[in-house]
Amino acid sequence: MAGKVVLHYFNGRGKMESIRWLLTVAEVDFDEVFLTTREQYLKLLSDGDLMFQQVPMVEMDGMKLVQTKAILNYIAEKHNLHGKDLKDKLLVNTHSEGLMDLMEMIMMLPFAADVKTKLDNIQNKAKDRYLPVFEKALSGPIYLVGGRLSCADVQLLECTLMLEEKFADILAEFPNLKSFQGRMTRIPAVSRFLQPGSKRKPQPDDVYVKTIMEVFDIKSPFL
Amino acid sequence: MAGKVVLHYFNGRGKMESIRWLLTVAEVDFDEVFLTTREQYLKLLSDGDLMFQQVPMVEMDGMKLVQTKAILNYIAEKHNLHGKDLKDKLLVNTHSEGLMDLMEMIMMLPFAADVKTKLDNIQNKAKDRYLPVFEKALSGPIYLVGGRLSCADVQLLECTLMLEEKFADILAEFPNLKSFQGRMTRIPAVSRFLQPGSKRKPQPDDVYVKTIMEVFDIKSPFL
Repeated sequence: MAGKVVLHYFNGRGKMESIRWLLTVAEVDFDEVFLTTREQYLKLLSDGDLMFQQVPMVEMDGMKLVQTKAILNYIAEKHNLHGKDLKDKLLVNTHSEGLMDLMEMIMMLPFAADVKTKLDNIQNKAKDRYLPVFEKALSGPIYLVGGRLSCADVQLLECTLMLEEKFADILAEFPNLKSFQGRMTRIPAVSRFLQPGSKRKPQPDDVYVKTIMEVFDIKSPFL
Repeated sequence: MAGKVVLHYFNGRGKMESIRWLLTVAEVDFDEVFLTTREQYLKLLSDGDLMFQQVPMVEMDGMKLVQTKAILNYIAEKHNLHGKDLKDKLLVNTHSEGLMDLMEMIMMLPFAADVKTKLDNIQNKAKDRYLPVFEKALSGPIYLVGGRLSCADVQLLECTLMLEEKFADILAEFPNLKSFQGRMTRIPAVSRFLQPGSKRKPQPDDVYVKTIMEVFDIKSPFL
């Protein structure tokens, strides 16, 4: 059992970044092995380490965990960052799924052909469909669900920071979200994670995209 | 509290079908309201019934549930169709996420431009990436996780039936999956659901696609 948690992924955000955020807030230390070559990936496959031939993969508690949402749910449950009962868990999952839908759109941008159209669509959906829901949920309560910190709050912080990187003023009409960001970034583990030199990853660049395409042997952008 | 469960969705499979399957196995009776016009959708929006402006929406236990995976998880937890502890829940979620990735590919086919390429890709991924995992998990055990029926088993049945509709012989190399299908279809609720006249929906047709495009005001296929 136990041993240190090891993340297997690219040296970039992608689907692993929410896991890094959640482990950080849970104050679980982790190591990272970065996939940089196709050979490394083929070795993981031939060793049977990737159940569905995909990363993220997380070594944890003597297991090799795959499927991002299953991993997030496990960490959240284990570290008391999920809802306290069936209904709160439902609400945490509902908020979390919405946030992941939105973050997924941003995550896919480096692989898109028509970035401008996609960016406009993301901004519109964020302002019209997603942010109002969270703004309303935080009109009074300091956390999204059940008066306590959950993985949905961690993802909301991650998501709002990602959005601000693309659309600097996007939170101007969402004062509760701005206050929430302020509160969350004062959590010591979060504050450390936001400092230079932490395991938080920067926005994707050309090297990140090139590495993914080489490792997975993809000839042209997906979208 | 309580009152009958009501599903709000199109008269077709889409993202709701896994919810219909799970409610069926949980022996929860449900009514359905089919979205057929844009006005109905706009009414749901203006009534604030769709948290993220999306369906599926499920009225249940005095709430209006959205986000498919959150809904499935709630039903599974409530009706004892999830893992019994943290590790079994992780495994159920992992299998379930893999199955939903695969089913999502099939679900999007009616909106695809290059159906043949997509079908080939689905068949290859099913045979190479997904089915071997479930075949192995069922070499001995009669259920995927922890010796008891879970939502992952229900989704595996749904998924294998969907695959066989597209690729009649696809289970030929997967005898454990074929046996599993046989066992699952002998569950009385499942057996009834597979009979004509049940609430199970047929494969998508042109009317289904046209309705979705009208309700969501989409001008051209997405993919």
